[in-house]
Amino acid sequence: MIDFPALHDIVDSTPSKVVMIVVDGLGGAPSPETGLSELETAKLPNLDMLARESSVGLTIPVAPGVAPGSGPGHLSLFGYNPLKYFIGRGVLEALGIGVSMGKDDVAARGNFCLLDKEGLLVDRRAGRISSQESFPLVEVLDEIEVDGVELSVFPVKDYRFVFLMKGKGLSDKLTETDPQRIGVAPLEVEALGEKAEKTRDLANSFLLQARRRLMGQERANMLLLRGFSRVPTFPSFNDSYKLNAAAIAAYPMYRGLANVVGMNVINCGVEFEDEIESLNTNYNNHDFFYVHYKPADAEGEDGNFEGKVRALEELDVMIPRILDLNPDVLVVAGDHATPSILAAHSWHYVPVLIRSKYTLGDGVESFSERAFSQGSLGTFQAEHLMLQALSHAGKLSKYGP
Amino acid sequence: MIDFPALHDIVDSTPSKVVMIVVDGLGGAPSPETGLSELETAKLPNLDMLARESSVGLTIPVAPGVAPGSGPGHLSLFGYNPLKYFIGRGVLEALGIGVSMGKDDVAARGNFCLLDKEGLLVDRRAGRISSQESFPLVEVLDEIEVDGVELSVFPVKDYRFVFLMKGKGLSDKLTETDPQRIGVAPLEVEALGEKAEKTRDLANSFLLQARRRLMGQERANMLLLRGFSRVPTFPSFNDSYKLNAAAIAAYPMYRGLANVVGMNVINCGVEFEDEIESLNTNYNNHDFFYVHYKPADAEGEDGNFEGKVRALEELDVMIPRILDLNPDVLVVAGDHATPSILAAHSWHYVPVLIRSKYTLGDGVESFSERAFSQGSLGTFQAEHLMLQALSHAGKLSKYGP
Repeated sequence: MIDFPALHDIVDSTPSKVVMIVVDGLGGAPSPETGLSELETAKLPNLDMLARESSVGLTIPVAPGVAPGSGPGHLSLFGYNPLKYFIGRGVLEALGIGVSMGKDDVAARGNFCLLDKEGLLVDRRAGRISSQESFPLVEVLDEIEVDGVELSVFPVKDYRFVFLMKGKGLSDKLTETDPQRIGVAPLEVEALGEKAEKTRDLANSFLLQARRRLMGQERANMLLLRGFSRVPTFPSFNDSYKLNAAAIAAYPMYRGLANVVGMNVINCGVEFEDEIESLNTNYNNHDFFYVHYKPADAEGEDGNFEGKVRALEELDVMIPRILDLNPDVLVVAGDHATPSILAAHSWHYVPVLIRSKYTLGDGVESFSERAFSQGSLGTFQAEHLMLQALSHAGKLSKYGP
Repeated sequence: MIDFPALHDIVDSTPSKVVMIVVDGLGGAPSPETGLSELETAKLPNLDMLARESSVGLTIPVAPGVAPGSGPGHLSLFGYNPLKYFIGRGVLEALGIGVSMGKDDVAARGNFCLLDKEGLLVDRRAGRISSQESFPLVEVLDEIEVDGVELSVFPVKDYRFVFLMKGKGLSDKLTETDPQRIGVAPLEVEALGEKAEKTRDLANSFLLQARRRLMGQERANMLLLRGFSRVPTFPSFNDSYKLNAAAIAAYPMYRGLANVVGMNVINCGVEFEDEIESLNTNYNNHDFFYVHYKPADAEGEDGNFEGKVRALEELDVMIPRILDLNPDVLVVAGDHATPSILAAHSWHYVPVLIRSKYTLGDGVESFSERAFSQGSLGTFQAEHLMLQALSHAGKLSKYGP
């Protein structure tokens, strides 16, 4: 992990190859009907076979009892302490829709809201208006111009959008305008320190114009901004681990996350099958592959137990395609659990598996939360997973004489 | 552990006795033929009996995924955070051959190398020449004199030796001369800061003379120095834990390690049987005993699976001799794993057992990595083992009112 100070002295580049499959929302929780989790319900012959040959355990994404967002969940798998390394809400939202951000740009997450005649908040989410209703309003906002900065507004979904500022000398040390309750006026942006005063004025100019242009709209006559942030500068994944890493992810947010840590982001299509195709095509050019599988999380977030079971089974079918490449180390991990019964990210520990020529199995017969709690890796901070993977790949020599 | 700030307030000296057997390289990995580890293959009736009566678990020597050297592996068992407390390579090598170092002395690890006519490195290890070939060359180096410092060169094994500087105002803030690749000249020693400039000049004078004296040798005509270091000053083991600890170890390096942390190093013969004899003789004079068992690591490092199995069985036979003393707390631990299939220290967690009148067994039937992963101690940082041992010995009262 990046926070292991002696890492640079003991890590070395080698020809061995590591493939890390990150199954988004991998972990689950028992169905009230059957008492079995999604993983326990799904038919997973290939993952079960891997489990029998691997060292297995459970990862703690952030801290016991804490459910992570996608940012912290992924950062910890990549070895970055998620309490120390943080990606702001504005940046993550921008990455999520594929907006490319320069290092000086500042992004905020925006959402439409409704004010009464006195300008007091009636609905902080403008009745969650649909994309159909909101996108024309986003176009209105995107036309606003403020001297000294280049402004853009990008639609996300429903009442949500991204507000992006490009220019010289911008700061993200700004407060949000959402007062977090109704019956009061939206807040003005405030500067946290002198250096942010110019950016504060630019943002408030935008808000003033937005108020004028949206006035008269019935459902959404104002907006709230939160999570002002710039793309953070993290230690490079490739430099830290002496790797030439490829990120293969169909969804923009995960490509963006990989880009923030300095992986090489590989082009691929939108399906997991396209990702596997891309893994094959690029296999000789890299020594580490982060491959992202989204559908398990998407179904879990929708509260669709059967859908998540199906998504896991669809992943299972693809495992032989990955094994055909015969990677020196195969890791199957998750950024967090997304139990269908919660329809949200959760704090549960997440199954993890490492397979190399040094693993011959822990006596664990199937790929599930319950089975993996008996594995030889035990329950450990996800942040240490990269060290395990590098050691299994022969890329890490011993620490200290 | 030393890094537990309230330790001093809650630890107390008592008559109870703790024996900690450190089995070097204790942990292993499954044989590809049988799927069983060395511990699972060995017949260990006494250790199995202990396992049934003890609290058992697995220790993490440094961090998950990190294989430790002997220094960090032992320091963590003694409760010293191995990332914070570090013993340099030169010092450890000197300790390993029983060279006694004063607190101002600086040691480096040396090895012979071969240069071509242009002075460029052809072989960084001089073809790993045997002790027979290298020892006369060590004598040549030992004759070198440099004004203002007392120099000694001690043979270690094959192409390796220890370079020792004794004098006033020496510094170990020096760079190594090994460029880590062939085709280039050895580096000069450089000072890391002004205070090291004098020592740098002394070391480089030695190297210049060495080059002249070795020139013409066919197999080893120069040397490389690395790991310049002084004996570090650590918090005292005895003071921190309010113990009167005895170290019983046949191998010089482990006696040296115990000396660095301030244990009383007891004389003993070269076999484990001699160590047990020494434990018996000195049992009334101390309240903590570190007893080191080397053969398991030695066989593991040689990649000798059967040899390691035998070494573990030979340890097992001696266990009743230790139990005859009826120690209040018996700990069986390892500084790291040395799986025969790796023929090296590894990153695997290490079995650990604590037996006292407060342990009644975890339902674990045998002494092995897999069995102990189900133990009540779980998987924990080796650094916390001393606290467990002290509590079982009634030497640690509760923290906080």
